[in-house]
Amino acid sequence: MDAKADDVARRLKSVEGHVRGVQRMVEDGEYCIDIVNQITAIQRALKKVSGMLLDHHLHACVTDAMRGPDAAARERVLGELLEVFEATGKS
Amino acid sequence: MDAKADDVARRLKSVEGHVRGVQRMVEDGEYCIDIVNQITAIQRALKKVSGMLLDHHLHACVTDAMRGPDAAARERVLGELLEVFEATGKS
Amino acid sequence: MDAKADDVARRLKSVEGHVRGVQRMVEDGEYCIDIVNQITAIQRALKKVSGMLLDHHLHACVTDAMRGPDAAARERVLGELLEVFEATGKS
Amino acid sequence: MDAKADDVARRLKSVEGHVRGVQRMVEDGEYCIDIVNQITAIQRALKKVSGMLLDHHLHACVTDAMRGPDAAARERVLGELLEVFEATGKS
Repeated sequence: MDAKADDVARRLKSVEGHVRGVQRMVEDGEYCIDIVNQITAIQRALKKVSGMLLDHHLHACVTDAMRGPDAAARERVLGELLEVFEATGKS
Repeated sequence: MDAKADDVARRLKSVEGHVRGVQRMVEDGEYCIDIVNQITAIQRALKKVSGMLLDHHLHACVTDAMRGPDAAARERVLGELLEVFEATGKS
Repeated sequence: MDAKADDVARRLKSVEGHVRGVQRMVEDGEYCIDIVNQITAIQRALKKVSGMLLDHHLHACVTDAMRGPDAAARERVLGELLEVFEATGKS
Repeated sequence: MDAKADDVARRLKSVEGHVRGVQRMVEDGEYCIDIVNQITAIQRALKKVSGMLLDHHLHACVTDAMRGPDAAARERVLGELLEVFEATGKS
Protein backbone atom coordinates (compact mmCIF):
# COMPACT_ATOMS: atom_id res chain seq x y z
CA MET A 1 0.00 0.00 0.00
CA ASP A 2 3.04 2.26 -0.63
CA ALA A 3 2.04 5.93 -0.45
CA LYS A 4 -0.82 5.09 1.91
CA ALA A 5 1.46 2.93 4.06
CA ASP A 6 3.86 5.87 4.31
CA ASP A 7 1.00 8.11 5.42
CA VAL A 8 -0.13 5.53 8.00
CA ALA A 9 3.46 5.12 9.28
CA ARG A 10 3.88 8.90 9.55
CA ARG A 11 0.62 9.27 11.48
CA LEU A 12 1.59 6.47 13.89
CA LYS A 13 4.99 8.15 14.42
CA SER A 14 3.11 11.34 15.26
CA VAL A 15 0.81 9.46 17.66
CA GLU A 16 3.89 8.03 19.40
CA GLY A 17 5.28 11.54 19.91
CA HIS A 18 1.88 12.74 21.11
CA VAL A 19 1.79 9.92 23.72
CA ARG A 20 5.28 10.96 24.92
CA GLY A 21 4.02 14.54 25.19
CA VAL A 22 1.16 13.35 27.39
CA GLN A 23 3.66 11.46 29.59
CA ARG A 24 5.53 14.74 30.11
CA MET A 25 2.27 16.52 30.95
CA VAL A 26 1.63 13.89 33.66
CA GLU A 27 5.20 14.23 35.02
CA ASP A 28 4.86 18.01 35.09
CA GLY A 29 1.56 17.72 36.99
CA GLU A 30 -0.39 19.61 34.34
CA TYR A 31 -4.13 20.15 34.69
CA CYS A 32 -5.99 16.81 34.38
CA ILE A 33 -8.61 18.09 31.94
CA ASP A 34 -5.86 19.34 29.59
CA ILE A 35 -4.28 15.86 29.68
CA VAL A 36 -7.63 14.14 29.11
CA ASN A 37 -8.25 16.41 26.11
CA GLN A 38 -4.86 15.46 24.63
CA ILE A 39 -5.68 11.76 25.10
CA THR A 40 -8.99 12.36 23.29
CA ALA A 41 -7.04 13.93 20.41
CA ILE A 42 -4.77 10.84 20.27
CA GLN A 43 -7.81 8.54 20.17
CA ARG A 44 -9.20 10.59 17.28
CA ALA A 45 -5.87 10.32 15.41
CA LEU A 46 -5.89 6.53 15.95
CA LYS A 47 -9.47 6.27 14.67
CA LYS A 48 -8.34 8.09 11.50
CA VAL A 49 -5.50 5.56 11.05
CA SER A 50 -7.93 2.66 11.52
CA GLY A 51 -10.17 4.18 8.85
CA MET A 52 -7.25 4.40 6.41
CA LEU A 53 -6.28 0.78 7.09
CA LEU A 54 -9.88 -0.33 6.66
CA ASP A 55 -10.13 1.60 3.39
CA HIS A 56 -7.08 -0.23 2.06
CA HIS A 57 -8.33 -3.55 3.44
CA LEU A 58 -11.72 -3.19 1.71
CA HIS A 59 -10.12 -2.41 -1.66
CA ALA A 60 -7.47 -5.18 -1.39
CA CYS A 61 -8.18 -8.27 0.75
CA VAL A 62 -11.97 -7.90 0.93
CA THR A 63 -12.31 -7.25 -2.80
CA ASP A 64 -10.05 -10.22 -3.63
CA ALA A 65 -11.88 -12.56 -1.26
CA MET A 66 -15.37 -11.45 -2.29
CA ARG A 67 -14.59 -11.81 -6.02
CA GLY A 68 -12.83 -15.15 -5.49
CA PRO A 69 -14.30 -18.65 -5.57
CA ASP A 70 -13.72 -19.53 -1.88
CA ALA A 71 -17.01 -19.19 0.05
CA ALA A 72 -15.25 -19.73 3.40
CA ALA A 73 -12.81 -16.89 2.65
CA ARG A 74 -15.73 -14.60 1.81
CA GLU A 75 -17.47 -15.51 5.05
CA ARG A 76 -14.26 -14.86 6.97
CA VAL A 77 -13.70 -11.31 5.65
CA LEU A 78 -17.36 -10.40 6.23
CA GLY A 79 -17.19 -11.75 9.80
CA GLU A 80 -14.04 -9.71 10.45
CA LEU A 81 -15.72 -6.53 9.19
CA LEU A 82 -18.67 -7.12 11.54
CA GLU A 83 -16.32 -7.62 14.48
CA VAL A 84 -14.49 -4.38 13.71
CA PHE A 85 -17.84 -2.57 13.57
CA GLU A 86 -18.91 -4.09 16.90
CA ALA A 87 -15.61 -3.18 18.60
CA THR A 88 -15.74 0.39 17.27
CA GLY A 89 -16.86 3.02 19.72
CA LYS A 90 -16.21 0.78 22.72
CA SER A 91 -13.22 2.85 23.77
CA MET B 1 -1.20 12.08 42.81
CA ASP B 2 1.84 9.86 43.58
CA ALA B 3 0.97 6.15 43.34
CA LYS B 4 -1.79 6.86 40.85
CA ALA B 5 0.48 9.15 38.82
CA ASP B 6 3.01 6.31 38.68
CA ASP B 7 0.33 3.94 37.43
CA VAL B 8 -0.79 6.48 34.80
CA ALA B 9 2.84 7.04 33.70
CA ARG B 10 3.43 3.28 33.45
CA ARG B 11 0.30 2.79 31.37
CA LEU B 12 1.25 5.63 29.00
CA LYS B 13 4.73 4.09 28.62
CA SER B 14 3.04 0.82 27.71
CA VAL B 15 0.77 2.60 25.19
CA GLU B 16 3.88 4.17 23.62
CA GLY B 17 5.43 0.71 23.17
CA HIS B 18 2.16 -0.61 21.80
CA VAL B 19 2.08 2.20 19.20
CA ARG B 20 5.64 1.32 18.16
CA GLY B 21 4.57 -2.33 17.83
CA VAL B 22 1.77 -1.26 15.50
CA GLN B 23 4.28 0.73 13.42
CA ARG B 24 6.32 -2.47 12.97
CA MET B 25 3.17 -4.37 11.99
CA VAL B 26 2.55 -1.79 9.25
CA GLU B 27 6.20 -1.96 8.06
CA ASP B 28 6.02 -5.76 7.98
CA GLY B 29 2.83 -5.62 5.93
CA GLU B 30 0.82 -7.57 8.48
CA TYR B 31 -2.87 -8.28 7.97
CA CYS B 32 -4.88 -5.03 8.18
CA ILE B 33 -7.55 -6.42 10.49
CA ASP B 34 -4.87 -7.53 12.99
CA ILE B 35 -3.44 -3.99 12.95
CA VAL B 36 -6.89 -2.42 13.35
CA ASN B 37 -7.56 -4.72 16.33
CA GLN B 38 -4.30 -3.62 17.98
CA ILE B 39 -5.24 0.02 17.45
CA THR B 40 -8.61 -0.70 19.10
CA ALA B 41 -6.72 -2.21 22.08
CA ILE B 42 -4.61 0.98 22.33
CA GLN B 43 -7.75 3.14 22.27
CA ARG B 44 -9.19 1.04 25.11
CA ALA B 45 -5.97 1.45 27.13
CA LEU B 46 -6.13 5.23 26.58
CA LYS B 47 -9.77 5.33 27.69
CA LYS B 48 -8.71 3.56 30.90
CA VAL B 49 -6.01 6.21 31.50
CA SER B 50 -8.55 9.00 30.91
CA GLY B 51 -10.84 7.38 33.47
CA MET B 52 -8.02 7.29 36.04
CA LEU B 53 -7.18 10.95 35.42
CA LEU B 54 -10.84 11.90 35.67
CA ASP B 55 -11.16 9.96 38.94
CA HIS B 56 -8.26 11.92 40.39
CA HIS B 57 -9.59 15.19 38.96
CA LEU B 58 -13.05 14.68 40.53
CA HIS B 59 -11.56 13.98 43.97
CA ALA B 60 -9.04 16.84 43.82
CA CYS B 61 -9.76 19.90 41.66
CA VAL B 62 -13.52 19.37 41.28
CA THR B 63 -14.02 18.70 45.00
CA ASP B 64 -11.93 21.77 45.93
CA ALA B 65 -13.75 24.03 43.48
CA MET B 66 -17.22 22.76 44.35
CA ARG B 67 -16.65 23.19 48.09
CA GLY B 68 -15.01 26.58 47.64
CA PRO B 69 -16.64 30.02 47.64
CA ASP B 70 -15.92 30.92 44.00
CA ALA B 71 -19.11 30.42 41.91
CA ALA B 72 -17.21 31.06 38.66
CA ALA B 73 -14.68 28.33 39.53
CA ARG B 74 -17.55 25.92 40.22
CA GLU B 75 -19.16 26.75 36.90
CA ARG B 76 -15.83 26.25 35.13
CA VAL B 77 -15.18 22.72 36.49
CA LEU B 78 -18.78 21.66 35.73
CA GLY B 79 -18.50 23.00 32.19
CA GLU B 80 -15.23 21.11 31.68
CA LEU B 81 -16.83 17.86 32.86
CA LEU B 82 -19.68 18.31 30.37
CA GLU B 83 -17.21 18.93 27.55
CA VAL B 84 -15.29 15.76 28.42
CA PHE B 85 -18.57 13.80 28.39
CA GLU B 86 -19.54 15.28 25.01
CA ALA B 87 -16.13 14.52 23.48
CA THR B 88 -16.15 10.94 24.80
CA GLY B 89 -17.05 8.27 22.31
CA LYS B 90 -16.34 10.52 19.35
CA SER B 91 -13.22 8.57 18.44
CA MET C 1 -35.97 21.46 35.82
CA ASP C 2 -39.03 23.01 34.09
CA ALA C 3 -38.07 24.56 30.73
CA LYS C 4 -35.20 22.11 30.37
CA ALA C 5 -37.43 19.16 31.33
CA ASP C 6 -39.85 20.28 28.60
CA ASP C 7 -37.02 20.36 26.08
CA VAL C 8 -35.84 16.89 27.17
CA ALA C 9 -39.41 15.53 26.97
CA ARG C 10 -39.87 17.03 23.49
CA ARG C 11 -36.62 15.52 22.26
CA LEU C 12 -37.54 12.08 23.63
CA LYS C 13 -40.96 12.34 21.92
CA SER C 14 -39.11 13.09 18.69
CA VAL C 15 -36.76 10.13 19.24
CA GLU C 16 -39.83 7.90 19.74
CA GLY C 17 -41.24 9.04 16.39
CA HIS C 18 -37.85 8.56 14.75
CA VAL C 19 -37.72 4.95 16.05
CA ARG C 20 -41.21 4.33 14.58
CA GLY C 21 -39.98 5.75 11.28
CA VAL C 22 -37.09 3.28 11.31
CA GLN C 23 -39.56 0.44 11.98
CA ARG C 24 -41.46 1.46 8.83
CA MET C 25 -38.20 1.57 6.84
CA VAL C 26 -37.52 -2.04 7.92
CA GLU C 27 -41.08 -3.13 7.03
CA ASP C 28 -40.80 -1.45 3.62
CA GLY C 29 -37.48 -3.21 2.99
CA GLU C 30 -35.56 0.03 2.53
CA TYR C 31 -31.82 0.02 1.86
CA CYS C 32 -29.93 -1.24 4.96
CA ILE C 33 -27.36 1.56 4.93
CA ASP C 34 -30.13 4.18 4.93
CA ILE C 35 -31.67 2.46 7.97
CA VAL C 36 -28.29 2.21 9.75
CA ASN C 37 -27.73 5.94 9.11
CA GLN C 38 -31.12 6.78 10.66
CA ILE C 39 -30.25 4.65 13.72
CA THR C 40 -26.96 6.57 14.01
CA ALA C 41 -28.95 9.83 13.95
CA ILE C 42 -31.19 8.51 16.77
CA GLN C 43 -28.11 7.57 18.84
CA ARG C 44 -26.77 11.09 18.34
CA ALA C 45 -30.10 12.58 19.47
CA LEU C 46 -30.03 10.36 22.58
CA LYS C 47 -26.47 11.43 23.37
CA LYS C 48 -27.63 15.06 23.22
CA VAL C 49 -30.45 14.28 25.70
CA SER C 50 -27.98 12.54 28.05
CA GLY C 51 -25.77 15.63 27.90
CA MET C 52 -28.71 17.87 28.86
CA LEU C 53 -29.66 15.60 31.77
CA LEU C 54 -26.05 15.50 32.93
CA ASP C 55 -25.84 19.30 32.72
CA HIS C 56 -28.88 19.59 34.98
CA HIS C 57 -27.58 16.85 37.29
CA LEU C 58 -24.21 18.60 37.74
CA HIS C 59 -25.85 21.92 38.62
CA ALA C 60 -28.45 20.39 40.96
CA CYS C 61 -27.71 17.07 42.70
CA VAL C 62 -23.92 17.12 42.27
CA THR C 63 -23.61 20.74 43.41
CA ASP C 64 -25.84 20.08 46.46
CA ALA C 65 -23.97 16.93 47.43
CA MET C 66 -20.51 18.41 46.88
CA ARG C 67 -21.30 21.51 48.93
CA GLY C 68 -23.02 19.49 51.66
CA PRO C 69 -21.51 17.97 54.82
CA ASP C 70 -22.06 14.29 53.88
CA ALA C 71 -18.76 12.75 52.68
CA ALA C 72 -20.49 9.52 51.62
CA ALA C 73 -22.96 11.46 49.47
CA ARG C 74 -20.08 13.31 47.82
CA GLU C 75 -18.32 10.03 47.10
CA ARG C 76 -21.53 8.56 45.65
CA VAL C 77 -22.11 11.39 43.13
CA LEU C 78 -18.46 11.32 42.03
CA GLY C 79 -18.58 7.54 41.57
CA GLU C 80 -21.76 7.86 39.49
CA LEU C 81 -20.12 10.46 37.23
CA LEU C 82 -17.15 8.14 36.66
CA GLU C 83 -19.48 5.27 35.76
CA VAL C 84 -21.33 7.44 33.25
CA PHE C 85 -18.00 8.43 31.69
CA GLU C 86 -16.91 4.79 31.48
CA ALA C 87 -20.20 3.65 29.92
CA THR C 88 -20.14 6.47 27.35
CA GLY C 89 -19.02 5.52 23.89
CA LYS C 90 -19.64 1.83 24.52
CA SER C 91 -22.61 1.83 22.19
CA MET D 1 -34.56 -10.95 5.33
CA ASP D 2 -37.60 -12.68 6.92
CA ALA D 3 -36.73 -14.17 10.33
CA LYS D 4 -33.98 -11.61 10.83
CA ALA D 5 -36.29 -8.77 9.76
CA ASP D 6 -38.81 -10.00 12.35
CA ASP D 7 -36.10 -9.94 15.01
CA VAL D 8 -35.01 -6.42 13.97
CA ALA D 9 -38.65 -5.24 14.00
CA ARG D 10 -39.23 -6.75 17.44
CA ARG D 11 -36.10 -5.10 18.83
CA LEU D 12 -37.08 -1.70 17.42
CA LYS D 13 -40.58 -2.12 18.96
CA SER D 14 -38.84 -2.80 22.28
CA VAL D 15 -36.60 0.27 21.85
CA GLU D 16 -39.73 2.37 21.20
CA GLY D 17 -41.24 1.14 24.50
CA HIS D 18 -37.96 1.79 26.28
CA VAL D 19 -37.93 5.40 24.99
CA ARG D 20 -41.52 5.88 26.26
CA GLY D 21 -40.38 4.50 29.63
CA VAL D 22 -37.61 7.10 29.75
CA GLN D 23 -40.17 9.84 28.95
CA ARG D 24 -42.18 8.73 32.01
CA MET D 25 -39.02 8.75 34.14
CA VAL D 26 -38.44 12.39 33.10
CA GLU D 27 -42.09 13.33 33.83
CA ASP D 28 -41.89 11.64 37.24
CA GLY D 29 -38.68 13.55 38.04
CA GLU D 30 -36.65 10.41 38.60
CA TYR D 31 -32.95 10.59 39.44
CA CYS D 32 -30.97 11.93 36.43
CA ILE D 33 -28.29 9.26 36.59
CA ASP D 34 -30.93 6.51 36.44
CA ILE D 35 -32.40 8.15 33.34
CA VAL D 36 -28.96 8.56 31.72
CA ASN D 37 -28.25 4.86 32.38
CA GLN D 38 -31.52 3.87 30.68
CA ILE D 39 -30.61 6.03 27.66
CA THR D 40 -27.22 4.26 27.53
CA ALA D 41 -29.07 0.91 27.50
CA ILE D 42 -31.21 2.13 24.58
CA GLN D 43 -28.10 3.22 22.66
CA ARG D 44 -26.63 -0.25 23.21
CA ALA D 45 -29.83 -1.90 21.93
CA LEU D 46 -29.72 0.33 18.83
CA LYS D 47 -26.07 -0.57 18.20
CA LYS D 48 -27.08 -4.24 18.30
CA VAL D 49 -29.81 -3.58 15.69
CA SER D 50 -27.31 -1.72 13.47
CA GLY D 51 -24.98 -4.74 13.71
CA MET D 52 -27.78 -7.09 12.62
CA LEU D 53 -28.68 -4.85 9.67
CA LEU D 54 -25.03 -4.59 8.69
CA ASP D 55 -24.65 -8.38 8.91
CA HIS D 56 -27.57 -8.80 6.52
CA HIS D 57 -26.28 -6.00 4.26
CA LEU D 58 -22.81 -7.60 3.97
CA HIS D 59 -24.27 -10.99 3.02
CA ALA D 60 -26.82 -9.56 0.58
CA CYS D 61 -26.15 -6.21 -1.15
CA VAL D 62 -22.38 -6.09 -0.55
CA THR D 63 -21.85 -9.69 -1.66
CA ASP D 64 -23.97 -9.14 -4.81
CA ALA D 65 -22.19 -5.89 -5.69
CA MET D 66 -18.70 -7.22 -4.99
CA ARG D 67 -19.26 -10.34 -7.09
CA GLY D 68 -20.92 -8.40 -9.90
CA PRO D 69 -19.33 -6.79 -12.97
CA ASP D 70 -20.09 -3.15 -12.06
CA ALA D 71 -16.93 -1.49 -10.68
CA ALA D 72 -18.84 1.67 -9.73
CA ALA D 73 -21.34 -0.38 -7.69
CA ARG D 74 -18.45 -2.09 -5.89
CA GLU D 75 -16.88 1.27 -5.10
CA ARG D 76 -20.21 2.55 -3.83
CA VAL D 77 -20.80 -0.29 -1.32
CA LEU D 78 -17.21 -0.06 -0.04
CA GLY D 79 -17.51 3.71 0.40
CA GLU D 80 -20.77 3.25 2.33
CA LEU D 81 -19.12 0.72 4.67
CA LEU D 82 -16.30 3.17 5.39
CA GLU D 83 -18.79 5.94 6.16
CA VAL D 84 -20.67 3.67 8.59
CA PHE D 85 -17.37 2.84 10.31
CA GLU D 86 -16.44 6.52 10.56
CA ALA D 87 -19.86 7.49 11.95
CA THR D 88 -19.79 4.66 14.53
CA GLY D 89 -18.90 5.67 18.04
CA LYS D 90 -19.65 9.33 17.38
CA SER D 91 -22.73 9.19 19.57
